[in-house]
Amino acid sequence: MKPDLVTEGEFKGWMTWMSEAFEYDTAGPFYYRKDEQGYITAFRAEAKHMNQGGVVHGGCLMTFADFSLFAIAADEFGEDGYGVTVAFNSEFLSGAKEGQLVESRGEVLRAGGSLIFVRGVVTADGTPCLNYSATLKRLSPR
Amino acid sequence: MKPDLVTEGEFKGWMTWMSEAFEYDTAGPFYYRKDEQGYITAFRAEAKHMNQGGVVHGGCLMTFADFSLFAIAADEFGEDGYGVTVAFNSEFLSGAKEGQLVESRGEVLRAGGSLIFVRGVVTADGTPCLNYSATLKRLSPR
Amino acid sequence: MKPDLVTEGEFKGWMTWMSEAFEYDTAGPFYYRKDEQGYITAFRAEAKHMNQGGVVHGGCLMTFADFSLFAIAADEFGEDGYGVTVAFNSEFLSGAKEGQLVESRGEVLRAGGSLIFVRGVVTADGTPCLNYSATLKRLSPR
Amino acid sequence: MKPDLVTEGEFKGWMTWMSEAFEYDTAGPFYYRKDEQGYITAFRAEAKHMNQGGVVHGGCLMTFADFSLFAIAADEFGEDGYGVTVAFNSEFLSGAKEGQLVESRGEVLRAGGSLIFVRGVVTADGTPCLNYSATLKRLSPR
Repeated sequence: MKPDLVTEGEFKGWMTWMSEAFEYDTAGPFYYRKDEQGYITAFRAEAKHMNQGGVVHGGCLMTFADFSLFAIAADEFGEDGYGVTVAFNSEFLSGAKEGQLVESRGEVLRAGGSLIFVRGVVTADGTPCLNYSATLKRLSPR
Repeated sequence: MKPDLVTEGEFKGWMTWMSEAFEYDTAGPFYYRKDEQGYITAFRAEAKHMNQGGVVHGGCLMTFADFSLFAIAADEFGEDGYGVTVAFNSEFLSGAKEGQLVESRGEVLRAGGSLIFVRGVVTADGTPCLNYSATLKRLSPR
Repeated sequence: MKPDLVTEGEFKGWMTWMSEAFEYDTAGPFYYRKDEQGYITAFRAEAKHMNQGGVVHGGCLMTFADFSLFAIAADEFGEDGYGVTVAFNSEFLSGAKEGQLVESRGEVLRAGGSLIFVRGVVTADGTPCLNYSATLKRLSPR
Repeated sequence: MKPDLVTEGEFKGWMTWMSEAFEYDTAGPFYYRKDEQGYITAFRAEAKHMNQGGVVHGGCLMTFADFSLFAIAADEFGEDGYGVTVAFNSEFLSGAKEGQLVESRGEVLRAGGSLIFVRGVVTADGTPCLNYSATLKRLSPR
């Protein structure tokens, strides 16, 4: 899926998918880029991401993890490819607070003909806050 | 956690937690009530919940499922109790489209002294779209 | 996958897959049959299934759950079909003791062209001890 | 939980828990030791571990993963501590064949006062075959 380049703000130069209503406009925006260690995703925790307990809502972290899956597997899908999440697992390790930089890195464990397996960890200012793994399914190029 | 009563709109008479920034203002609002079969949760799928593929984003469904966990386990926590999601699993069964009524029912599988186990299914106009299960941890009354 | 009929013992008249080395000879045998409520699977907890804590080992319960997945989805695969487990999730609800009857029932949540989603609960003398869900992938008839 | 030293065979010098009926006598034995990279677990895939498809049964891999969780978290529990698996997730990446060396390494993602989170990957002759993560709960020293 062809990404969009971010042209301003803290994440200037990163990529995102602006046509994603929930992921970009509602819950996000979330961002990704590739560096020497592979793909990294990120967002800045804001008041809108919080739960009543004063930390980023688990649903927000899982949405960010779901975004991260497709960034981590971007080279497998290519710009014309597309896929869906089939199964998603996660463990909540600690809370992320407002103002913290939330990031994720992960790895493609296996990319088969129809299924792709990815795992990763979300951190907040470097502290692990969510572990996740997922099964993705390739769809035909759109 | 003490809920708020919804006083207008399609979900008038349902309950929600309005102090939840991400869950209520950002991704939601989501709603719950108790009927003769137990707790039911619901929201109406809108444009803001969609992904680029034209269905409700997986992160939205998981956020709604996370909300549903605490509605389903509301009697276990009580109005003064509070808890957090420790682990969350899900399988994506089908897509939910804009305009559909997204609902969930589930059950407390076991409520122990420190951990509560819940499972449920999210449906869209009655068709199963997400299966989920989770481990919740009780926190001290706040 | 064509099952074998059990001809003696407590589970006389039930079905199993005797060509499964680990599932039948090593960890099991485990059994299944169909009644008016659908498929049910079962085995009697013996000393060989226990862990040091005096309850059935989690790995045994998960092996039994994996067996149960294919019994529950038997009508989807047919006697000539075959499949593999792609992803498996579980929560441990309580311990099963030696001598108890361990059973499971579950349901096919969705059977698609390539993937089948199943969930179920394992009980010991009727008490829930394991919740599980899984994604199965169809393979070509063998 | 105090381990036993293996005194002969391929895994001479490794540790195991011989009082575990299912894990040691039935499904295993499985082994662990600590090297400069941390804990490693292993067993040799034998005919008794196979499924009808000619690869190690998923239940065997999950039992080995469950064993591995407690090896990986051994320093957290100590020799007097004990714990149970609360939730377990896994993805099946590829098959392990008879005769292959099945190993696992992993990491403690977070060790809290009551819960410990662990993730790891099982390999067969170095090829990833199972990804897993789990939530463990500390029990009082026995």
